[in-house]
Amino acid sequence: MCGIVGVFNNTEAANFAYLGLYALQHRGQESASIVSVEHNGTSNLRAFHAEKGMGLVAQVFKPEVLARLPGNAAIGHTRYSTTGDSNLLNAQPLLAETNKGRFALAHNGNLVNAEGWRKELEWRGSIFQTTTDTEVINHLIALSRKGNFTEALIDALRQIEGAYSIVLLTQSEFFAARDPRGFRPLVLGQAGESWIVASETCAFDLIGATYVREIEPGEIVRISQNGLESVKFAQAVKQQCIFEHVYFSRPDSVVFGRSVYRTREQLGRLLAQQHPTPEAEIVVPVPDSGVPAAIGYAMESGTPFRMGLIRNHYVGRTFIEPKQSIRDFGTKLKLNPVRELLRDKSVVLVDDSIVRGTTSKKIVRMVWEAGAREVHMRISCPPTIKSCQYGIDTPTSEELIAAHRSEEEIRAFIGADSLHYLSLVNLRSAVQPGEHGFCDECYSGRSSLVRIEG
Amino acid sequence: MCGIVGVFNNTEAANFAYLGLYALQHRGQESASIVSVEHNGTSNLRAFHAEKGMGLVAQVFKPEVLARLPGNAAIGHTRYSTTGDSNLLNAQPLLAETNKGRFALAHNGNLVNAEGWRKELEWRGSIFQTTTDTEVINHLIALSRKGNFTEALIDALRQIEGAYSIVLLTQSEFFAARDPRGFRPLVLGQAGESWIVASETCAFDLIGATYVREIEPGEIVRISQNGLESVKFAQAVKQQCIFEHVYFSRPDSVVFGRSVYRTREQLGRLLAQQHPTPEAEIVVPVPDSGVPAAIGYAMESGTPFRMGLIRNHYVGRTFIEPKQSIRDFGTKLKLNPVRELLRDKSVVLVDDSIVRGTTSKKIVRMVWEAGAREVHMRISCPPTIKSCQYGIDTPTSEELIAAHRSEEEIRAFIGADSLHYLSLVNLRSAVQPGEHGFCDECYSGRSSLVRIEG
Amino acid sequence: MCGIVGVFNNTEAANFAYLGLYALQHRGQESASIVSVEHNGTSNLRAFHAEKGMGLVAQVFKPEVLARLPGNAAIGHTRYSTTGDSNLLNAQPLLAETNKGRFALAHNGNLVNAEGWRKELEWRGSIFQTTTDTEVINHLIALSRKGNFTEALIDALRQIEGAYSIVLLTQSEFFAARDPRGFRPLVLGQAGESWIVASETCAFDLIGATYVREIEPGEIVRISQNGLESVKFAQAVKQQCIFEHVYFSRPDSVVFGRSVYRTREQLGRLLAQQHPTPEAEIVVPVPDSGVPAAIGYAMESGTPFRMGLIRNHYVGRTFIEPKQSIRDFGTKLKLNPVRELLRDKSVVLVDDSIVRGTTSKKIVRMVWEAGAREVHMRISCPPTIKSCQYGIDTPTSEELIAAHRSEEEIRAFIGADSLHYLSLVNLRSAVQPGEHGFCDECYSGRSSLVRIEG
Amino acid sequence: MCGIVGVFNNTEAANFAYLGLYALQHRGQESASIVSVEHNGTSNLRAFHAEKGMGLVAQVFKPEVLARLPGNAAIGHTRYSTTGDSNLLNAQPLLAETNKGRFALAHNGNLVNAEGWRKELEWRGSIFQTTTDTEVINHLIALSRKGNFTEALIDALRQIEGAYSIVLLTQSEFFAARDPRGFRPLVLGQAGESWIVASETCAFDLIGATYVREIEPGEIVRISQNGLESVKFAQAVKQQCIFEHVYFSRPDSVVFGRSVYRTREQLGRLLAQQHPTPEAEIVVPVPDSGVPAAIGYAMESGTPFRMGLIRNHYVGRTFIEPKQSIRDFGTKLKLNPVRELLRDKSVVLVDDSIVRGTTSKKIVRMVWEAGAREVHMRISCPPTIKSCQYGIDTPTSEELIAAHRSEEEIRAFIGADSLHYLSLVNLRSAVQPGEHGFCDECYSGRSSLVRIEG
Repeated sequence: MCGIVGVFNNTEAANFAYLGLYALQHRGQESASIVSVEHNGTSNLRAFHAEKGMGLVAQVFKPEVLARLPGNAAIGHTRYSTTGDSNLLNAQPLLAETNKGRFALAHNGNLVNAEGWRKELEWRGSIFQTTTDTEVINHLIALSRKGNFTEALIDALRQIEGAYSIVLLTQSEFFAARDPRGFRPLVLGQAGESWIVASETCAFDLIGATYVREIEPGEIVRISQNGLESVKFAQAVKQQCIFEHVYFSRPDSVVFGRSVYRTREQLGRLLAQQHPTPEAEIVVPVPDSGVPAAIGYAMESGTPFRMGLIRNHYVGRTFIEPKQSIRDFGTKLKLNPVRELLRDKSVVLVDDSIVRGTTSKKIVRMVWEAGAREVHMRISCPPTIKSCQYGIDTPTSEELIAAHRSEEEIRAFIGADSLHYLSLVNLRSAVQPGEHGFCDECYSGRSSLVRIEG
Repeated sequence: MCGIVGVFNNTEAANFAYLGLYALQHRGQESASIVSVEHNGTSNLRAFHAEKGMGLVAQVFKPEVLARLPGNAAIGHTRYSTTGDSNLLNAQPLLAETNKGRFALAHNGNLVNAEGWRKELEWRGSIFQTTTDTEVINHLIALSRKGNFTEALIDALRQIEGAYSIVLLTQSEFFAARDPRGFRPLVLGQAGESWIVASETCAFDLIGATYVREIEPGEIVRISQNGLESVKFAQAVKQQCIFEHVYFSRPDSVVFGRSVYRTREQLGRLLAQQHPTPEAEIVVPVPDSGVPAAIGYAMESGTPFRMGLIRNHYVGRTFIEPKQSIRDFGTKLKLNPVRELLRDKSVVLVDDSIVRGTTSKKIVRMVWEAGAREVHMRISCPPTIKSCQYGIDTPTSEELIAAHRSEEEIRAFIGADSLHYLSLVNLRSAVQPGEHGFCDECYSGRSSLVRIEG
Repeated sequence: MCGIVGVFNNTEAANFAYLGLYALQHRGQESASIVSVEHNGTSNLRAFHAEKGMGLVAQVFKPEVLARLPGNAAIGHTRYSTTGDSNLLNAQPLLAETNKGRFALAHNGNLVNAEGWRKELEWRGSIFQTTTDTEVINHLIALSRKGNFTEALIDALRQIEGAYSIVLLTQSEFFAARDPRGFRPLVLGQAGESWIVASETCAFDLIGATYVREIEPGEIVRISQNGLESVKFAQAVKQQCIFEHVYFSRPDSVVFGRSVYRTREQLGRLLAQQHPTPEAEIVVPVPDSGVPAAIGYAMESGTPFRMGLIRNHYVGRTFIEPKQSIRDFGTKLKLNPVRELLRDKSVVLVDDSIVRGTTSKKIVRMVWEAGAREVHMRISCPPTIKSCQYGIDTPTSEELIAAHRSEEEIRAFIGADSLHYLSLVNLRSAVQPGEHGFCDECYSGRSSLVRIEG
Repeated sequence: MCGIVGVFNNTEAANFAYLGLYALQHRGQESASIVSVEHNGTSNLRAFHAEKGMGLVAQVFKPEVLARLPGNAAIGHTRYSTTGDSNLLNAQPLLAETNKGRFALAHNGNLVNAEGWRKELEWRGSIFQTTTDTEVINHLIALSRKGNFTEALIDALRQIEGAYSIVLLTQSEFFAARDPRGFRPLVLGQAGESWIVASETCAFDLIGATYVREIEPGEIVRISQNGLESVKFAQAVKQQCIFEHVYFSRPDSVVFGRSVYRTREQLGRLLAQQHPTPEAEIVVPVPDSGVPAAIGYAMESGTPFRMGLIRNHYVGRTFIEPKQSIRDFGTKLKLNPVRELLRDKSVVLVDDSIVRGTTSKKIVRMVWEAGAREVHMRISCPPTIKSCQYGIDTPTSEELIAAHRSEEEIRAFIGADSLHYLSLVNLRSAVQPGEHGFCDECYSGRSSLVRIEG
């Protein structure tokens, strides 16, 4: 779970990278980093500037910090740790000084053969500075005997497997690349003379940039003073992450060429067809992520939509829980019921997933305590039965409630009158499988990994 | 615009006051303060502890700050400046050492005869430490010749006019009081052996307290080791602030005995009846405050409800605007359109107010730029034509667009195809005037002030 | 223990006040505050700016804080609590809004009749905002029926007793005043068109100002657009604090008209005459305060002066003591012996005072452990036998080792071969009693307080 | 200019490393870092903990930061940049993950063949994470084909040239090493069962450790659960840095087996013999570093020693210079003259060096403005004529005033009546050349570098 951004040919590159990261904050809230460089400058080996910090983008990048990031090109990264220690030492972009010059690389995804490469490279004498899998790519670039940087990058990418969307900055060029399956999103935008690359289109909206197209699976885009150039380094075999549409991306983004909001509303409609609740009086979303599906459910079923749970948006990071503990305190900090709406009502509660089941249990209890007469839980995706190996921070399969329990057992655990999930067939139809290939291993349990030939 | 809270007989009084202020954060985001005292302690004149700071509640009250607030009684205040300089010197609760002992007082409201009293008191030799009107009450208490504190407080309150909800802490007692008109809300709750007083019931939900009742207009509630006692210091003449229901209170609160969410949804329904938009294809709220009215509008009209604008909830306080300015940057930081929903649609945009008109103009433009075919603006209250003198931070009448321009002129200014407001009659019917008296001077222009006899 | 400063008619008044406080940092390290005002401005009641914080001057007054202190007049205060709670609420300058306009006052000293006045004033209905004795002066000014501010100030000062040096700022005038005994220092300086008042002359050196003269005991100096004016409000009866010369003032200051360094060197010379140590091989000061006396002792005795103890000047405020405790850790943080100098030597250790005896004991042990053959302790003042009631933060008489133990007992306690103090007669001769009257109650036990007639 | 420390077999290793760095603060004030590891723990690859920050040791290592450094072994580094960018990315200790496991290395010194190695290693495909020369050592260790870590370290050290004192931590061992010339100091101490290695002995005094001996030139000391072991990796050819004795080390340290204070006092004595000033009335040091030499000068000449310049020890890092500039403001912040001592006196001013001459000029002017009749400058070392290539942060030879100007020209520039330096012969005699070999290239201009055979 990470967000990445790259800005090229912009006198305020770091400021724009910062705004892009800000719009991508939902993709990683642990740390934020930006590396900038002046591409028009003289060839000065010391020209990279790097700033990083733990915390939210707006906390890390105070004005005085941004002022230390001059230059007309920049890449940024916001991170929620997936592999590697969860600390600042591992924060990307990683800087490398090599025989191909200095460069900085940031990546969103997970490599599946990183551990093997690491052992091999260490055996050869390479030093790793972090425990992230990203660093393997840097070493493969440095060790490539290819004549120019683009070729060395192709060389490196052909040797790694897994999910990756990459932005990379050298002292005169900017690269964006996406793995052959196109697992994670990566989009290209334009603002005047500047190019922007970002994980999602919501970053463009804030910056005032226009969406151009996706970086294609298996494509490297190279941008320099000579303009934009596209290189296909591998045959695309689309296996895009379906969870980006279900939960991870922002609803106002276009991801894999399709509106996330539209997908989610359609998930709600299909859920209403598959699991109607004729006895219910109101449809209530678990905000904010459950809202589009709940609207779809309400539309399709004709049951009134109500914001029966209000989300508190002032949550700070240093919250003090009182010693004399308040039941479900953490959930109450985030959500509060509107008692007048819920009292004596038969409620359909729409959420986008049940992971461990503990949060759902607390929310259901909150609705009961607000006086609901019936509580029917509806989930806008299939049961999550397998942990993701490509960078989504799902818990281990042991912790996934649906990996071990039947729907009836889960219903009993969360304390609802009824519980139903959307079927995998319906999920697939909502994201248009005809056009796009998706990875749904977390729901189907079937590996989607296809070995890519270069 | 302020939020106040008081906690009595709780070993974690300051922690609970902090959580209460956190739930009331929407009532004031400029500064936050808490004063605590140990009521069971020996009679130590030095026993008050005070901490205050500029910023959000969770920023000011770090764990180490809360640790400096021991005691079993506390009052807190979160503030958006109305009178007085906007700085920390004026932050309430104000501490006073007097012939009646030490006390601390926090107040939400605005006194209309404060300036006259201030001149009179200064002439007598009193020293003011702030420019807030609150301090007048402290001096009237200190100067009262009445024998005990309760009587001195009654004495003081009978001499002031205006809107006030008060929490007051002495070294052994806790007081809550509300002006005879009951202009600002103030509610009483209970959690085990502890009493809680707060501006809105949403503070109780977070703390795990139960709503008991409102502090009545013209009532002083006195809580001490001897329990709770109620004193009527003036005849109630209800003139409650209608704007609390329209905009200011949180939708999940019960205010003036009525659910705020329900009121707002009803405003939307009445708006749809009064100003239908049969040509529209979707109803889109301006989030978050416009959501309940938009749901009501959609329900009543049968037009589909869509979250066509997404609110970004990571807004930090040190935001950097790029030099190469982005059009409507501030609005884009907060809102982002879902283009796929708005494109080629006839949109009803529902908001709860138009103040200066500049923000509405930007939002309408954002909807146009997302590709809408038609934009119909509907406002869930009447035009705001007069500035509030009781503590709501409305701009001066000069700045209020509706004070000078016709509906048609405003429509042209914001660039919508049509614009309609809810009528005052409908607004009044939604808050049930039969049962409650309301002040609607900001909409009607007619003063609601009634001189109160003690 | 406080330092005060005032700057008048300077476009950078707050910056200069800051630098003055910085030079006076040794007089109080708990909190620092500045109030500024624009005297040339229009008569705006809101024109005072105030900033304060806990900690060192350079920590509190970051550039962004100083930027909030515009104006051409300013007063500042750095404080080590003497009376009142040790917290920010009590930090001076105190602001007052009165019938004589707004003013701010800062004071160095201790009033002996403050508690009586406080009770009397509270009885009349006055409210105190702090527990400091300073606030009594503010109330007496506010209550005075005199026609102008200067007369009201005289009125107030004639009613209080004790030690005080005062700077006071109104919206158009600046005042400096000193009690009739002249207990605490206060000096007047000039820099171009600007006037500076400060506790010690070292503040002038840093600012680039020239020393003009002392504010006289019993004098009020009033500075306004009309220039400087002097008023005698009481007959001077000099009883200046002898401890300023012995320890408290900086050695590079001129205090009570005399160089502090010269006094201390003379104390050392007299100490050598009174208590020679012919067997000693080196004279070692306890740095930094013992250095001038040790130089004097070495000169007079002909014994070589050596810096056998080095002071560590990087001491931060958040120091972590290891759990596996290191003997005399706190002392080691500050001082380190030069073993090569002390080994096998007979050492005269010169310090300026022994208070509780515990620090001296640790230092003597440090010298022993460095290998000294003999340790002879010499103190450049008489035994401190009484706690100060005029604002020096000496411990209670119970804690003063010399209040209860003989010189021989103290010697045994600190573990030295010999211990001798300077006699009171010699101390008096060093500060030239012929010219100046001094208070030496802490050494003599005899009260120097003289009731002053107005 | 750096300070390094290592702690082995201590349950509070990071706390002790912190205290050691604190005592070594004078060796580098730009950044501070500590890496810790639990040597007794299970073989966990993730076991290193690292914290670093810009600023003083006590600012960087707040209690909450130290709490993130568990383990029983730690190394630390405090740095004033010599090579490499001056920023946090370059802060040591550097962490490396290699085929020989994880390790962390910190070094004080300068390698002269680092640039060549860096090019060679990059050509082979190695990636550098910093621009420091230290990183070359890490790569040479990683690339060594030797069987165990000690041999790989020897392998690496035999390939580098220059000045280095090293501390290195693996997951089970601790190493300390010094280059064959022993250019920079490095000492071994013991505290109970724990071993401490530090740049200077003053670190031992604070920690309560006992000085054992120097790490010898050309020696590697290896400490593990099996105890301490010494390996000679090269023949020692002593060429120790004479500047450590003249200026850089703390006077209370024993460096290269000799007391720094004693050396400096002796430099002052020899200076008085070589350049007597019979007409002078007082000897005044430029504090703090000039004090021991001034004491020596005063003793030898019989001229009285006086602290005529007082150093202000509260200097903070965010100092604001007023716009209306004060002459020699920066110098005044640090030093203040005692006018009473200097007025009408013929003064010998003793300092330990003149670098660019600008500071000396300001100090001489300060003494003149305090009223001195004559000012005679005496410097306790020869003229600095060459920039140091082994890590002392002297300016370029172009900036060194003595590289281009005669003594008479320098005297005229700083504005003194006379100026004299100590001769190189005398400097050498003071540090006992019979016993120790020293590098004095900065004074003599003659390179002391001897190519070392492994």
